[in-house]
Amino acid sequence: MIENKILLTECPDDTGLVAKITNICYKHQLNIVQNSEFVDSDTRRFFMRTELQGIFNDQTLLADLAFTLPKGSVYKLVPQKQKRIVILVTKEAHCLGDILMKTYYGGLNVEIAAVIGNHADLANLAERFDVPFHLVSHEGLSRVEHDKLLSEKIDEYAPDYIVLAKYMRVLNPEFVERYPNRVINIHHSFLPAFIGAKPYQQAYERGVKIIGATAHFINNELDQGPIIMQNVINVDHTYTADAMMRAGRDVEKTVLSRALELVLADRVFVYQNKTIVM
Amino acid sequence: MIENKILLTECPDDTGLVAKITNICYKHQLNIVQNSEFVDSDTRRFFMRTELQGIFNDQTLLADLAFTLPKGSVYKLVPQKQKRIVILVTKEAHCLGDILMKTYYGGLNVEIAAVIGNHADLANLAERFDVPFHLVSHEGLSRVEHDKLLSEKIDEYAPDYIVLAKYMRVLNPEFVERYPNRVINIHHSFLPAFIGAKPYQQAYERGVKIIGATAHFINNELDQGPIIMQNVINVDHTYTADAMMRAGRDVEKTVLSRALELVLADRVFVYQNKTIVM
Amino acid sequence: MIENKILLTECPDDTGLVAKITNICYKHQLNIVQNSEFVDSDTRRFFMRTELQGIFNDQTLLADLAFTLPKGSVYKLVPQKQKRIVILVTKEAHCLGDILMKTYYGGLNVEIAAVIGNHADLANLAERFDVPFHLVSHEGLSRVEHDKLLSEKIDEYAPDYIVLAKYMRVLNPEFVERYPNRVINIHHSFLPAFIGAKPYQQAYERGVKIIGATAHFINNELDQGPIIMQNVINVDHTYTADAMMRAGRDVEKTVLSRALELVLADRVFVYQNKTIVM
Amino acid sequence: MIENKILLTECPDDTGLVAKITNICYKHQLNIVQNSEFVDSDTRRFFMRTELQGIFNDQTLLADLAFTLPKGSVYKLVPQKQKRIVILVTKEAHCLGDILMKTYYGGLNVEIAAVIGNHADLANLAERFDVPFHLVSHEGLSRVEHDKLLSEKIDEYAPDYIVLAKYMRVLNPEFVERYPNRVINIHHSFLPAFIGAKPYQQAYERGVKIIGATAHFINNELDQGPIIMQNVINVDHTYTADAMMRAGRDVEKTVLSRALELVLADRVFVYQNKTIVM
Repeated sequence: MIENKILLTECPDDTGLVAKITNICYKHQLNIVQNSEFVDSDTRRFFMRTELQGIFNDQTLLADLAFTLPKGSVYKLVPQKQKRIVILVTKEAHCLGDILMKTYYGGLNVEIAAVIGNHADLANLAERFDVPFHLVSHEGLSRVEHDKLLSEKIDEYAPDYIVLAKYMRVLNPEFVERYPNRVINIHHSFLPAFIGAKPYQQAYERGVKIIGATAHFINNELDQGPIIMQNVINVDHTYTADAMMRAGRDVEKTVLSRALELVLADRVFVYQNKTIVM
Repeated sequence: MIENKILLTECPDDTGLVAKITNICYKHQLNIVQNSEFVDSDTRRFFMRTELQGIFNDQTLLADLAFTLPKGSVYKLVPQKQKRIVILVTKEAHCLGDILMKTYYGGLNVEIAAVIGNHADLANLAERFDVPFHLVSHEGLSRVEHDKLLSEKIDEYAPDYIVLAKYMRVLNPEFVERYPNRVINIHHSFLPAFIGAKPYQQAYERGVKIIGATAHFINNELDQGPIIMQNVINVDHTYTADAMMRAGRDVEKTVLSRALELVLADRVFVYQNKTIVM
Repeated sequence: MIENKILLTECPDDTGLVAKITNICYKHQLNIVQNSEFVDSDTRRFFMRTELQGIFNDQTLLADLAFTLPKGSVYKLVPQKQKRIVILVTKEAHCLGDILMKTYYGGLNVEIAAVIGNHADLANLAERFDVPFHLVSHEGLSRVEHDKLLSEKIDEYAPDYIVLAKYMRVLNPEFVERYPNRVINIHHSFLPAFIGAKPYQQAYERGVKIIGATAHFINNELDQGPIIMQNVINVDHTYTADAMMRAGRDVEKTVLSRALELVLADRVFVYQNKTIVM
Repeated sequence: MIENKILLTECPDDTGLVAKITNICYKHQLNIVQNSEFVDSDTRRFFMRTELQGIFNDQTLLADLAFTLPKGSVYKLVPQKQKRIVILVTKEAHCLGDILMKTYYGGLNVEIAAVIGNHADLANLAERFDVPFHLVSHEGLSRVEHDKLLSEKIDEYAPDYIVLAKYMRVLNPEFVERYPNRVINIHHSFLPAFIGAKPYQQAYERGVKIIGATAHFINNELDQGPIIMQNVINVDHTYTADAMMRAGRDVEKTVLSRALELVLADRVFVYQNKTIVM
């Protein structure tokens, strides 16, 4: 059966890597639909994303790669199929709404397994789109207790990725380590400017002329994870902090949706604290 | 004689301010060519910039304003004439070159009185455009001593504004206080991200997807002065710190030239740590 | 009762207009919350938008203006209240979805009276948000007949504005003249590039490196009406016409929503074939 | 001797092309510094740009490619060395100035052999940078006669590329055919909007909210050649045609310089009427 799969390779740079990998594909009679490679000049790390089409024998293909690639290589063969996400929210609707719209009316190829809120405000929005909504309140719970409830609920759905669509709480280290490079957040500033709470208020007080939004993977330093995508809009002295917040919503939702689209298409490598987006 | 002057008014907000000020202009038979006003909602501060045309009696006009405007008002009548600048540089040519080009071939209405460098690298560029260049080396001098030599040289030319066109040294507080809201700097990052030295290296290490530049007035906190203008460009994982630096030059020079154009046209109010740009 | 109203004035330019109008407001003890004026240098036409707060006597205020303003003046006093729209659609959901989301979850202050489609595809989306949907099919009808049915259905709701949210049919001149400067369209190109059908296909064939969207009022020349707002995104040789179309959706919906927000806030003057946006 | 060369390959798509080409490089012990490939989905045309490092035997390498690649292939091996340009100008200085600045103070690796003007206005600017300037006036000459003089003067310098830095005359077909894909123009609009003369006046009359610039190769249809790069800036109703022209200059010069940088680095394939930029 003819299938499409994506080969993701990451290893120390070496001469002939492209030739060696593409040769293996060629020997397996796999057609390269699209290929991108990159060598990081600092770390001499090689990255390659290869969209393949043909009849796959995964086991022998991976064995051939294992035999050929240098030590320290990481590679996987990913089927091009729909992935599953769980979305975490608090009270703001715009990012959730954009993902729902794009999932149900075109733009994102994903299954939204569930929406989980620490407040009930967006239950109604999830229900409009027939997506299960779970309230997991943090009231009266420690952060660790709450995050444990969250991850139990999340794990019921076994999602590929967890999307923080304006989820306004910091997650504890255990939670983050449970889902390495699988939690995508939208931060409502042009990071690393305005880390932490109330970035629009910070931006207003600093008198900036441009505001932005940043989609990134979560790691255990606040707003310090690998950046996937950023975008900005112009503001001026007539914008209050509140006007910046309103204007920023379109940037936030667009950046998050687009970052999600890239991650879902297996276009994002994470290496150290950066992303390579192909 | 018919002249063009700009009335800049800044005062606590009050009812009827626009009516009162425009009435005075009307009584003086001055035509309003362009008028902009703004009230800061936090501080209830009123700002108005009025381009006037007619025969001016400055003394009675200012007296009428003094009589009418509330306590704590600041206002001035500025003739629309060419201003004079002194440019400080170190080694990088692009910002100086852009200002020189625009001054001599159209785009900036300004007199460049002199270029002062703490290195001699750009003497040759200033001379191509027949502008006096002075080397004021910092070698063997304390910051205070060097800045004193700088300001002596600057004061010889009595400039309206001092432009730091990639002048890569921090100026001491006495220097800064000597020229309040008269020193314009270009910082090669999207402030407040990457304050201080080597912002492109910082941007590279953080893995940002957008870099920028910020033109601001200098105050006595490093890279914290009132922002006049900012702009950005997209980058990706293929950019080294050096490639970011090269790509950033066009943004830096354009942002600085445009900020300078606004300041020279008396379009920039400074209030507290922000600008109102009209 | 203290109210907020907006005074919109448009007239031949004359000396003292700002003074005269603001004086009248001052005499009526109305506070100017925000004021913007503009004189078109070609046509010597004066435009002013004044946000007023106070106790209004509309009749005497308008009489005072009538007495004071030059011949050929157009002015109106608009209460700051929620306006009503009817949305016309065909099959694409993203613009409608964005307006629905912003209306029900924050961002647009408007009443969506109804959605009318010439296809039934989006009935389901309107219903998710509890908005009446009417199918007015064009099947078997002449353009004039179909537009007549449309305007009968529209008029039942007496909307302030009609929004064409990817309504993919040209409206006949009688329809357009029935709603002067009240029909807002989103065109999926950076007008005047790629007028007419399939602009993304046209853009793809031309090999452009940037695509865009344009929100404009409808007049009786195809895609020639007064432009309210435009925005663009970068594309490259890897984009097929279909990929451009998908990437363009976020621009289209953002441009339309933002244009609508400006129109609803009475910030858009139309003069000849241009807009003045304040 | 270790050298850097760029292999540019263009051919009908086929399975295993990447493997075959990179294999040949590998056999020749050439290291792939950077590789990019693209298959146009419409035409099934394959494009690949490979930066190679090593000891080259050009003849056998090209012979190996000839043996391996499908019929209809076009390929060349380009040494990474400085190229030579001749610049054509009329009266406007900003594009010429930007290229001169970047060539002499960093940003463009190119030899400017000469500047040729149909007016003498910019002789002075070329001389500031010690570049030969030739006046080739069109006065009293037919277009064919003038273009003949131009190309005679150009050919004295045997440039790799000819840059039209606001050269405000249309070149005749014979001239264009003489230098296929070697003449780069900057058009002061966002093509295909506002083809032909006075694009800023056209933009002003249409009331657009964004203006732009387009760098493209010249072909024999006015402003219809393959687009290399475009960029835009926002404008509004306060911009006269003249203000648009002034604001547009920074976009024009930046777009032209950046397009030139891409062409000089052999990053631009031309196929049919489009560019593939790698």
